[in-house]
Amino acid sequence: MYKVKVGKKILSLNEEYAAKNRRFLAGHNKPCLNMISSPGSGKTAILARTITELKGRIRIGVIEGDIQTELDAERIRATGAPAVQINTAGACHLTAVQVAEALKKLPIDELDLIFIENVGNLVCPSTFELGETAKIAVLSVPEGDDKPAKYPAIFARAKALLINKVDLLEAVDFDIERAKADVLKLNRDIRIFAVSAKTGQGFAEWSNWLLELTGK
Amino acid sequence: MYKVKVGKKILSLNEEYAAKNRRFLAGHNKPCLNMISSPGSGKTAILARTITELKGRIRIGVIEGDIQTELDAERIRATGAPAVQINTAGACHLTAVQVAEALKKLPIDELDLIFIENVGNLVCPSTFELGETAKIAVLSVPEGDDKPAKYPAIFARAKALLINKVDLLEAVDFDIERAKADVLKLNRDIRIFAVSAKTGQGFAEWSNWLLELTGK
Repeated sequence: MYKVKVGKKILSLNEEYAAKNRRFLAGHNKPCLNMISSPGSGKTAILARTITELKGRIRIGVIEGDIQTELDAERIRATGAPAVQINTAGACHLTAVQVAEALKKLPIDELDLIFIENVGNLVCPSTFELGETAKIAVLSVPEGDDKPAKYPAIFARAKALLINKVDLLEAVDFDIERAKADVLKLNRDIRIFAVSAKTGQGFAEWSNWLLELTGK
Repeated sequence: MYKVKVGKKILSLNEEYAAKNRRFLAGHNKPCLNMISSPGSGKTAILARTITELKGRIRIGVIEGDIQTELDAERIRATGAPAVQINTAGACHLTAVQVAEALKKLPIDELDLIFIENVGNLVCPSTFELGETAKIAVLSVPEGDDKPAKYPAIFARAKALLINKVDLLEAVDFDIERAKADVLKLNRDIRIFAVSAKTGQGFAEWSNWLLELTGK
């Protein structure tokens, strides 16, 4: 019996494309943030406000992931930013192959920063690398302060967390200190921003962080 | 070359156990509802209120699915109802095998109705049969009225939809007529209940529907 030594880790198709996307983004020197959250936590609203607040300072492009519809890409385009919609037709997370295709459709040289808005799902997208520079988690106040303990994967992996809809803190039971403490137990290096995409609260700090990230 | 005819559909392990659960529930004449929604839409709060409102009329048992923690089962037990917690340790939906194990731990003969609270995920649990009598979808107002169009699978398959947190209708932009119309386009037989697990609004209609379902 012959033994064949294979001196190379065999990568899955997703990992191969994630590596390809990472090289593409590094080659163009463009940071890329993969936003992950439950459906309805406000990812698109955060992106629309971020683009508007940073207009003239950072040029942002967006890759939108949804099971169906072009609704989110349309909301982004209404801000004037380029957006490419991916429809997963039932799949619960974006793949690196889909992102590779979408990256080709963005005017990459005219951008400073790329956001990927993943399919609304607090679980599955956390473990599929897309070639992003970093993951950003979003948790909205009405979802409850117990979510980091119950769904730790994304909070453990994200570089930053946006606690969104803080304008609803009065209307619902949400202990923001408990949520922060649970997240920091999972990930002590994470940056946490308490924001409201509706009122603009907290967007100054978040925008500054993005300015630093892009070297602007 | 011999041809072997296999006159039986080969079922996946999940389908096999789903069929087994279905026979078990039918044999005991117990309806079983599989609740599916995004994280934080209020499934546990709805269950706790439902159990309390129906106390003395319907005896309810609950199977709780979460990635981690026993938090939800503890909230159910605080109402006096039996609850079995399943931790999926990362998996994004419950399986029929897990439910088969949990069913053994419930005092089935003392119950009139079993709820399964699936992992908070609007996508993946929709396509995994657990042997349930019917699926129940929950959509909470802060998630946004565009969710049925963007995540159609569960809305197309559910027997009933609870639109929860209607107490927040004033605080957020949510067009309840749009949400209902989009759901009815996907599923014209679905029953829709507008409720608030916080204030109790809409629970009379929902409770009546459960009384009918259990023949009480």
